[in-house]
Amino acid sequence: MDKIFQNKLVLEILEKYKVIWSIEHAMALLSWDSETYMPEDGVGERSVAVSQLDLLKQKFITEEDFIKLVDRASEEKDLNEYELGLLRVLNRAIRIYRLLPPRLIEELAKVTEEAKIVWRNARINNNFKAFEPYLEKIFSLSKECADYLGYKEHPYDALLDLYEEGLTSKDVTQIFDSIKYRLKTVLEKIESEKEFSERHPLEDIEYDKDSMRKVNFWVAERLGYDRKRFRIDVSAHPFTIHMGLRDARITTRYEGKDFKSTLFSVIHEYGHALYGLQHNEAFMFTPLANGASLGVHESQSRFWENIIGRSMQFCTAIYPFLKENLSFLEKYSVEDVYRYFNIVRPTLIRVDADEVTYNFHILLRYELEKLTLAGEVKVQDLPTLWNSMIEDVLGVRPKTDSEGVLQDIHWSLGSIGYFPTYTIGTILSAQLRSHILKDVPNFYEKISRLEFNEIKEWLKNKVHYWGSMYPPKELLKRMLGEELNPEYFISYLEKKYLGKSI
Amino acid sequence: MDKIFQNKLVLEILEKYKVIWSIEHAMALLSWDSETYMPEDGVGERSVAVSQLDLLKQKFITEEDFIKLVDRASEEKDLNEYELGLLRVLNRAIRIYRLLPPRLIEELAKVTEEAKIVWRNARINNNFKAFEPYLEKIFSLSKECADYLGYKEHPYDALLDLYEEGLTSKDVTQIFDSIKYRLKTVLEKIESEKEFSERHPLEDIEYDKDSMRKVNFWVAERLGYDRKRFRIDVSAHPFTIHMGLRDARITTRYEGKDFKSTLFSVIHEYGHALYGLQHNEAFMFTPLANGASLGVHESQSRFWENIIGRSMQFCTAIYPFLKENLSFLEKYSVEDVYRYFNIVRPTLIRVDADEVTYNFHILLRYELEKLTLAGEVKVQDLPTLWNSMIEDVLGVRPKTDSEGVLQDIHWSLGSIGYFPTYTIGTILSAQLRSHILKDVPNFYEKISRLEFNEIKEWLKNKVHYWGSMYPPKELLKRMLGEELNPEYFISYLEKKYLGKSI
Repeated sequence: MDKIFQNKLVLEILEKYKVIWSIEHAMALLSWDSETYMPEDGVGERSVAVSQLDLLKQKFITEEDFIKLVDRASEEKDLNEYELGLLRVLNRAIRIYRLLPPRLIEELAKVTEEAKIVWRNARINNNFKAFEPYLEKIFSLSKECADYLGYKEHPYDALLDLYEEGLTSKDVTQIFDSIKYRLKTVLEKIESEKEFSERHPLEDIEYDKDSMRKVNFWVAERLGYDRKRFRIDVSAHPFTIHMGLRDARITTRYEGKDFKSTLFSVIHEYGHALYGLQHNEAFMFTPLANGASLGVHESQSRFWENIIGRSMQFCTAIYPFLKENLSFLEKYSVEDVYRYFNIVRPTLIRVDADEVTYNFHILLRYELEKLTLAGEVKVQDLPTLWNSMIEDVLGVRPKTDSEGVLQDIHWSLGSIGYFPTYTIGTILSAQLRSHILKDVPNFYEKISRLEFNEIKEWLKNKVHYWGSMYPPKELLKRMLGEELNPEYFISYLEKKYLGKSI
Repeated sequence: MDKIFQNKLVLEILEKYKVIWSIEHAMALLSWDSETYMPEDGVGERSVAVSQLDLLKQKFITEEDFIKLVDRASEEKDLNEYELGLLRVLNRAIRIYRLLPPRLIEELAKVTEEAKIVWRNARINNNFKAFEPYLEKIFSLSKECADYLGYKEHPYDALLDLYEEGLTSKDVTQIFDSIKYRLKTVLEKIESEKEFSERHPLEDIEYDKDSMRKVNFWVAERLGYDRKRFRIDVSAHPFTIHMGLRDARITTRYEGKDFKSTLFSVIHEYGHALYGLQHNEAFMFTPLANGASLGVHESQSRFWENIIGRSMQFCTAIYPFLKENLSFLEKYSVEDVYRYFNIVRPTLIRVDADEVTYNFHILLRYELEKLTLAGEVKVQDLPTLWNSMIEDVLGVRPKTDSEGVLQDIHWSLGSIGYFPTYTIGTILSAQLRSHILKDVPNFYEKISRLEFNEIKEWLKNKVHYWGSMYPPKELLKRMLGEELNPEYFISYLEKKYLGKSI
């Protein structure tokens, strides 16, 4: 391989960056361990270690010598694309860390550390009042962050940019405006035709966990799960973590019934994992070994989960193995299973939502976050507003705050501005589908034969390989020749659920 | 609890130390993960992370400001015992890091990183020649370390002190001199009486791994394994790692036959784990949350493994559960199992050795290390010398270097001077036994009822609670009122194997 980093100053930066990378590597493992294997009493010491290492990372990124070096390198001439990408990412990180006073970062870390626990109990006990003061503090600190980071039109833009570089609330509103009515129409038609909207008996049938585990691992292996670079473990909330270019780890959970939930967690997280396993190998130990953004990352998980995993072809291909190992499937045809995988029905809980209703859950959160951040809505009014809005959009109303405003962990972690990236990802996954249909002949036939090499190669060339070299908007233009376009998503849904053929 | 650290400078030190502690915490997890769950291709990135964090830790300990602070604190008056202990440990770490040039530490790290892999293959292929140049380099760098660290009589003393503070080769030689003839006599008598020395059919019987796992967990629970603070996993070589005062992790391995091996690994490692779980809680985040030395640590594992685990009382107490879960035990009485647990027979492999022959394996390594370090023996002559010496002492001669000089991982890791701590631990475990017999009434009766609370409390008060506050020799004098005394060990063995009553 040609040395893609050649500039002397850039090489010096990368040498210094190794320690930052190593801290991130360690923090990734600490976080993975906390969710999977750590004995519960270990949490106190663990949280001190994590906050210390986080401060240390911040310290190294904002060290005067390091910044000077990055500044000097940025002025060099004849930098290549890779070097420019690297410096862009570093300058962005430095800018963000410099704009935010350490005091503010520490305050946020402290309140969210407590808020996580308070939120968990508040959700269990359906007690929003307990969580309210923490949420108020989190919103007010987030507003402060936005003010320090700066924005042109809305404070929300400053936070959004942290997760999805270059995205503004104007963009997000436009996206939602362009899909919400058509989504609603799709939903209404599905409901009236009832084929995909009725409760399915498989949602309530209990599975044997060992058999289900076998199915999950078998499916992961069909997708290309490689034990030498990959792990699948169990955690309360499924997630993916990248330890490096050659070590990606996903989790799923076994709730004991409704087997599509654990299966699709595996497929979803596999999509995230594959992204990180297919970066350019030269990005090892550099900040380019990351996704372009959270939205682009989500597009990969959604692509595998929805476009591939929820297709008739995939369903047909895995059906024999499922039937063999999950005895309760005996009574169900492949069409039954396909319908079960593709139930579309308004529900209260975001993480259980289907392809069609999912984005309404995001829209709701997006609007509430924006209003609260701008001070137009008070935190104490969020529960009632939440309930009215979800009823308004989906026709279902939470009986408790636990199934309403308290359902997500995100706010307790201080992740305000994060939710829209889920919609970006979902939309982009459908856009990628349209492009791959043109580039990879017999896409769906390949799925029906569980042949994924060409598909993975295409995703690598278009997305994975580039890591975080380009900001998301630029990556799309370069690789797909166009901007994010929600039209693909809507027409995919219309064809799938109404045209009954994709 | 009273604040045991009160001095302002000491408190300042502890605040600064948190980041060092956090790096150690992360490194402990990285190391645990490497041996248990890491996908194999992750090793390249992992080793970079580990060496970077190691350098970082070193950097923080030797930072000028930190050293000045420790210096200033050390001059304070009215420091209490805890503060004095803390400063002693820190001054020792600083002294060692300052004496060793970073270049030397890096060279050692580099050669051992490669040597680990080379050694593994050399052992598999019985090819000492492949390992020889690495071992030469390791001995020569170790000699350099010894020279930098300084010593009065023998370069070996400088290395020994790294693992067992204050121990000299003169001490070690004296200890071996005082035990080797009597050990030999014990061994000869056992062999002539044949009760404990004959090959036992249980050594060859295969077990079902799931049943064995059940037995291991059950035994660990009887000892006091607390899931909230404790894990048991599987690794190629059993070990214990402390993530903190409330998170200790042990491993065992399942080789498929000779079930005592996996069972006694669990009991042995439990002893190490318990030590770290019973330190003074005020030592959290400080360098005092460590064992007093490797030898003292080993005394704890040996105490549980040999004194408790290999006793007739323990064997009798766990026998019914063993029989219930390991069906092949049907034909064997509790006396059979006891004899199987206590087979004494000269063998070639140290890790399989029994209470009596074990120390001869250590003596051999100790003498070879000392000779090689002093340049009196050449690395190339080690295989032949090894074989002659072990034959001389135990009457068995390796057919290959894999069962001889290549059997241990230690030298490939650069751990020269480490082996004697195993003998210290074994001797000390018997000494602790004599003391606990006086302090805890009906010690063996308690074991036969699997009641360990009082025993754990005694170990806590005498050893665990104090962490690394006192150097090992001082700890012994304070807690037991005497120095390390091999007499206890020999007379324990004589009584157990010859007197047939302890």
